[in-house]
Amino acid sequence: MTIRIVVIGADAAGASAASTIKRGLKDQAHVLLLERQQWTSYAACGIPYWVSGDIPDMNSLVARSPEKHRANGLDLRTGVEAIAIDPASRTVTARTLATGEVHQHGYDHLVIATGAVPLRPPIPGLDLPGVHGVQTLDDGLAALESLSTGPARAVVIGAGYIGIEMAEAMCTRGLQTTVVDLADEPMGTLDPDMGALVRAAMEEMGIAYRGGAGVDSVQAGGDGRVAAVVTAEATYPGDIVVLGLGVRPRADLAREAGLPIGARGGIRTDAQQRVEGHEGIWAGGDCVEVLDRVSGQHTHIALGTHANKHGRIIGANIVASVTGKGPQLAFPGVVGTAISRICDLEISRTGLREAQARELGLDVVTAKVEAGTRAHYFPGGGTVHVKVIAERGTGRLLGAQIVGAAGAGKRIDAAATAIWNGMTVEEVTGLDLAYAPPFSPVWDPLQVATRRAASLV
Amino acid sequence: MTIRIVVIGADAAGASAASTIKRGLKDQAHVLLLERQQWTSYAACGIPYWVSGDIPDMNSLVARSPEKHRANGLDLRTGVEAIAIDPASRTVTARTLATGEVHQHGYDHLVIATGAVPLRPPIPGLDLPGVHGVQTLDDGLAALESLSTGPARAVVIGAGYIGIEMAEAMCTRGLQTTVVDLADEPMGTLDPDMGALVRAAMEEMGIAYRGGAGVDSVQAGGDGRVAAVVTAEATYPGDIVVLGLGVRPRADLAREAGLPIGARGGIRTDAQQRVEGHEGIWAGGDCVEVLDRVSGQHTHIALGTHANKHGRIIGANIVASVTGKGPQLAFPGVVGTAISRICDLEISRTGLREAQARELGLDVVTAKVEAGTRAHYFPGGGTVHVKVIAERGTGRLLGAQIVGAAGAGKRIDAAATAIWNGMTVEEVTGLDLAYAPPFSPVWDPLQVATRRAASLV
Repeated sequence: MTIRIVVIGADAAGASAASTIKRGLKDQAHVLLLERQQWTSYAACGIPYWVSGDIPDMNSLVARSPEKHRANGLDLRTGVEAIAIDPASRTVTARTLATGEVHQHGYDHLVIATGAVPLRPPIPGLDLPGVHGVQTLDDGLAALESLSTGPARAVVIGAGYIGIEMAEAMCTRGLQTTVVDLADEPMGTLDPDMGALVRAAMEEMGIAYRGGAGVDSVQAGGDGRVAAVVTAEATYPGDIVVLGLGVRPRADLAREAGLPIGARGGIRTDAQQRVEGHEGIWAGGDCVEVLDRVSGQHTHIALGTHANKHGRIIGANIVASVTGKGPQLAFPGVVGTAISRICDLEISRTGLREAQARELGLDVVTAKVEAGTRAHYFPGGGTVHVKVIAERGTGRLLGAQIVGAAGAGKRIDAAATAIWNGMTVEEVTGLDLAYAPPFSPVWDPLQVATRRAASLV
Repeated sequence: MTIRIVVIGADAAGASAASTIKRGLKDQAHVLLLERQQWTSYAACGIPYWVSGDIPDMNSLVARSPEKHRANGLDLRTGVEAIAIDPASRTVTARTLATGEVHQHGYDHLVIATGAVPLRPPIPGLDLPGVHGVQTLDDGLAALESLSTGPARAVVIGAGYIGIEMAEAMCTRGLQTTVVDLADEPMGTLDPDMGALVRAAMEEMGIAYRGGAGVDSVQAGGDGRVAAVVTAEATYPGDIVVLGLGVRPRADLAREAGLPIGARGGIRTDAQQRVEGHEGIWAGGDCVEVLDRVSGQHTHIALGTHANKHGRIIGANIVASVTGKGPQLAFPGVVGTAISRICDLEISRTGLREAQARELGLDVVTAKVEAGTRAHYFPGGGTVHVKVIAERGTGRLLGAQIVGAAGAGKRIDAAATAIWNGMTVEEVTGLDLAYAPPFSPVWDPLQVATRRAASLV
């Protein structure tokens, strides 16, 4: 008998899972892949760089087109939205958006990969022409259309990863760019002292940062298009406004089906990505919560790299469930690693922020150092700022943040791997990291920071 | 009573130890720092880049000049060579090279940091004018003098780190460059299949690689200067010849004093860098052996980053010994991480090579992948080749090697940290490494390799 697999969502997690299942089960399984949009397997994280013009061709953001998925044997239906899940009868109800037709699909295994919803606070004017989100390819197309009208000034609302990437994009397009945010400093996933370094660099690039005030409204001009962003403090003229406010899990469908939802709004799964308490239902990607290995708490992090790992794990586990062969894979959790850049400035972080650590009741010490990306005498190097957060007493490394020149950002991986393994700052100071003059000072910047922290714990 | 500290060698390990001791003990200690050369604390690893012209000023290679060391309260004697150590009477005998004068110095603590000796095989002609080593600043000055005579062709003997860095230097100087080595492929610290990638890149840069034949002799021309390098296979004309043959520990002084010497020719110490069985004698840097955490064996790795760590540890431990305060620090060993580049090609490695692992009796699987340094759609990325070696059955990551474009090399740090912590390839595949399109594909190249290896173990 054919195993019936239904996958809701054909982006990173869903398409990876579907592909893995089809590869593993071949004709043993019918894999139905439902996708609301017309696009599949696209790199949402690449959209800011497409809007900036760095990536000229939208199609290059599509890792696997609908045609390819179909050629691989998946029964892909685009423009079809899942509207209900009934775990009792093991069926999914879906509507074809163009026709309104509704179908029911029985499943033996269901994969929920519904992704995330952009945050849209109740600010008047967010629906004006010229106000753009950057979550979908359609959003990107709309932003590019606005840019083609020749705007002179851009306002970006929100100074997180998407916000600063979009600020870079607007700046690259030659627009006078202002970023507004509630927080005093940009990049709320960094501590404010590190965020201040980002702000200083933004200002040097000619990007204005206006923090400390929320947006009251977005106002239209005489032509009905967006013209300004109004905060309690000032009015910022903008011919284009970009929303960089982050996302929340798209979990309504799961909630309505009675599936467990966590405090952060994401679907709760076990480490194998099974929805807790629901045999045969799996979930992954931006719609689920993940375990933060450092805090021990569940959190929500929308990131393609986690979604792809979830897809691989769900696919392998369904194949193993069906065939009785192969190990069950587990998602081991995250440590909150993230990286971005704004023009030449690289920004990365992992683990707990100082404030987060204190909220968890941890007694912490911090060390912040400035070092070179290369040996001091080697030409072409730049400055890197590293901050580490450690637990007093045990010396356990809890977090690290990096702001610096080219070559600075990916150094966070060593810190992430160290935190993952519960290393102390003294142990990190002893690590055998790669050294040669074109690549690092003889004391790696991370180790300069952990060495200082080790003297304080 | 003043504590008498004698430190032999004023480069990375010795000068670090001496400075740490003086900072910790101040007037409580007299720190005598003996140095054969006129230079102190210089970056030998920077010499190839000075010879290439990348670093215009020799003085920038000197991290701390003799004057600065003296200003910091060290009794530094340059041009003074230690010629004997007597552990029984706790004295060091030293000769002032300029005058021949000999002095004896009593010590409470002795630090041996005598560094390494360049390998000079018994090849006729190695003492010809125009044949250069690259260990000391004097070597660099001599090489630059030869370059100022306008040579057209260079031959580099040896294709390890120093050899390929010097090949880059000669190529940068516009010389037609040939590298000769016994091995079929360059970079013997890589597996041959990865070395072949380095060779192909060298050939594309116009640097000839002639492997598989040892050097029989170096021949002079009519002017008495070097003119050619002769192997069993061919004669390679060269107006300048560079020796990139690596080094061995400079441990004769220690051996003659009856201190323990390991199989690799280096001084044997415990983890605190105490010379085994000799209370009050410490050693660090290129003259000692270090514990390889992966093989469990002692090895010799001459690298400034280890030497600096040794210096810090020895200094802190002597301060703690004298004051009775503070913890004893330990050097945790190495995993054999190294990085280099030849022009735009970055090369790095960590852990065991495939052949090394097999020699240790391990049953191994390997996976080799080609990936991008950035998301496939992001401009400016390059190719990176990653090879991982894992133990069959346990899945333990044993080694990793990277050859690739800009941004590829330092990725080895995540692998080094993973090996350090005994992670399996499946665990590495789950690691939370930094992802954003300008920095990495959504699956980090290292994790593409470990994922493949995980399917094989």
